[in-house]
Amino acid sequence: MDKQKIDILIATKAWQPEPWVEGLKDYEFVNKVHVWPTNADLSNVEALFVWKPLDAGVVEKLPNLKWVSSLGAGVDHLVGDEQIPAAIPITRIVDPYLTRDMTNYCIMGVMLHQRSFFQHQANQQQKVWDRIAYQNLKVGVMGLGALGGHLAEHLVALGFEVSGFSRTQKQIAGVKCYAQQDFETFLSVPDVVVNLLPVTPQTENILNKETMLKMKQGAYLINVARGNHLVEEDLIKVLNSNHLSGGLLDVFRQEPLPKKHPFWNHPKITLTPHVASVTTPASALKLLKSNIERLINREQLQHVIDRSAGY
Amino acid sequence: MDKQKIDILIATKAWQPEPWVEGLKDYEFVNKVHVWPTNADLSNVEALFVWKPLDAGVVEKLPNLKWVSSLGAGVDHLVGDEQIPAAIPITRIVDPYLTRDMTNYCIMGVMLHQRSFFQHQANQQQKVWDRIAYQNLKVGVMGLGALGGHLAEHLVALGFEVSGFSRTQKQIAGVKCYAQQDFETFLSVPDVVVNLLPVTPQTENILNKETMLKMKQGAYLINVARGNHLVEEDLIKVLNSNHLSGGLLDVFRQEPLPKKHPFWNHPKITLTPHVASVTTPASALKLLKSNIERLINREQLQHVIDRSAGY
Ligand SMILES: NC(=O)c1ccc[n+]([C@@H]2O[C@H](COP(=O)([O-])OP(=O)(O)OC[C@H]3O[C@@H](n4cnc5c(N)ncnc54)[C@H](OP(=O)(O)O)[C@@H]3O)[C@@H](O)[C@H]2O)c1
Ligand SMILES: NC(=O)c1ccc[n+]([C@@H]2O[C@H](COP(=O)([O-])OP(=O)(O)OC[C@H]3O[C@@H](n4cnc5c(N)ncnc54)[C@H](OP(=O)(O)O)[C@@H]3O)[C@@H](O)[C@H]2O)c1
Repeated sequence: MDKQKIDILIATKAWQPEPWVEGLKDYEFVNKVHVWPTNADLSNVEALFVWKPLDAGVVEKLPNLKWVSSLGAGVDHLVGDEQIPAAIPITRIVDPYLTRDMTNYCIMGVMLHQRSFFQHQANQQQKVWDRIAYQNLKVGVMGLGALGGHLAEHLVALGFEVSGFSRTQKQIAGVKCYAQQDFETFLSVPDVVVNLLPVTPQTENILNKETMLKMKQGAYLINVARGNHLVEEDLIKVLNSNHLSGGLLDVFRQEPLPKKHPFWNHPKITLTPHVASVTTPASALKLLKSNIERLINREQLQHVIDRSAGY
Repeated sequence: MDKQKIDILIATKAWQPEPWVEGLKDYEFVNKVHVWPTNADLSNVEALFVWKPLDAGVVEKLPNLKWVSSLGAGVDHLVGDEQIPAAIPITRIVDPYLTRDMTNYCIMGVMLHQRSFFQHQANQQQKVWDRIAYQNLKVGVMGLGALGGHLAEHLVALGFEVSGFSRTQKQIAGVKCYAQQDFETFLSVPDVVVNLLPVTPQTENILNKETMLKMKQGAYLINVARGNHLVEEDLIKVLNSNHLSGGLLDVFRQEPLPKKHPFWNHPKITLTPHVASVTTPASALKLLKSNIERLINREQLQHVIDRSAGY
């Protein structure tokens, strides 16, 4: 094997592997791209690229494994996977286009609520001309990482009153930042809460009846992070009691959302099928290639996650 | 009459005069605020504040008139009004909040189109999970003034490919700017066209069958400027022929939109009742007060329009 080229294994359950294989196979630092499942000899594989979930027993076939990357922004499918040795670095995709698209989707969601857009749609159907007043809104962003931090900055630029919540204390110009211990205070302020946390043991089920009742009466929830953040039946309860005014949801505990799920035809819920921001192989491949080169040159990989923090 | 205070006449047909009167009557440089119609002696009135339309015969009752201001961003209701002597300056409202709200509304409109939002709504009703792909869009902004210029800059910041169209050649970082003579080239590029022109004899009916057919097949139209820009029956034609894919309309030739108008239940038209950006008296009053002081101090008024250009 050429010392300057590596073998890669791609294991994508939820997506087609083709664009990733195509994008990598002729790259100068790639020797061979395998696609899981396969019976081929994987003993030379140094890099494993995964999109959800990773089958049991894959890693034991990779004695030479040096690096695991998620093919998306989230790593919740990898962090808890005990087959990945603690010493193997796990990286994730941080992609300016993914970030841009997520920010724009969330701004759309904030505006739909600010402008009573669904009421205007209903009024149009009834031929009712009603100039519904609007107010400038306070928007709270849960998670101030690659995605949430970018969103918060752009919301500030667009004139919203923005607050944010993160594990460690952040400083972002124009954003009132709260850290973990101030979660309750954070929750009580915004008119719109956008969730952009990663899923970890600490954040799973973080949107539950108790926390949603601490949000302002009439607040609007946008969940674009992960379905596991939200206790779905609790959202139904706080909507039906009129504590929250509505929700825009892009992610669900089970995807595709089962036909019998009450979200589909709940009048206060708008849902989209996990499309708030979609990884495009073309741009994610740039980052993967740069990390392949770094691996070969024994440089520090980019966007390595902190496995003890869980993201 | 105190030399340092002026009399004002407010003539608002479309809005209630109260917040304007309240906001002005105790201002230190205001003597008396009259509201049209009135039989009072108006011979001391130096400033006339108007929102649409101005009755005939008002100005002849104001022998001491020195200044006319629109109470909104548009001045199309004043520019063509021959009762206003050519020597009297006409000003308009340029308000950072009005600008912010317009930009945010337009971004919402662009995103609704980019994300096939109405298709996702229909899919939700049918319980269909379809991850519709999206692409980054080219957005063209007609009018690069206080509103269009701000929108174009913010669209660039959010990662769209932005072009703009204005009477005189503009230079805005990141925006491909076209002047009047390049209108056809401008029209052919964008996926979404946002109209933020003022109404003038040159721009009235500028969105007609001929110009809309020069837009890209499948383009989406957002009209937030004035109803008189758009030949409404032509839009129906280019939508029904599938040349344009849809329209978000906030302004109409007749407002409120008549019940029998075909826009109400056209499946490709989304309409809002002239609420893209609403002047709030509180913030417009700041500008009016600053201009009252300037009038008294014989300084140049702010935001005087060019009556020969028509805006
Ligand atoms: N719907 C979609 O289409 C879509 C697309 C892409 C991504 N996503 C989701 O978005 C998530 C966020 O992505 P990202 O790239 O922004 O992640 P990131 O850069 O790792 O940022 C995570 C943020 O969450 C904060 N955080 C973590 N644990 C916390 C806790 N227990 N309490 C409070 N704050 C906590 C972190 O705080 P510190 O700043 O203190 O570290 C950080 O600010 C991903 O994990 C993924 O699930 C969804
Ligand atoms: N729907 C709503 O709620 C709402 C609210 C507020 C305002 N509006 C509308 O928005 C309009 C624009 O407001 P604004 O404050 O941005 O106006 P503005 O500052 O006067 O800007 C007007 C822009 O249009 C351009 N323009 C004028 N005539 C043109 C022509 N014949 N061909 C090409 N470009 C031309 C100007 O070109 P130059 O740069 O070369 O001068 C300028 O860039 C207002 O007139 C009003 O009708 C709607």
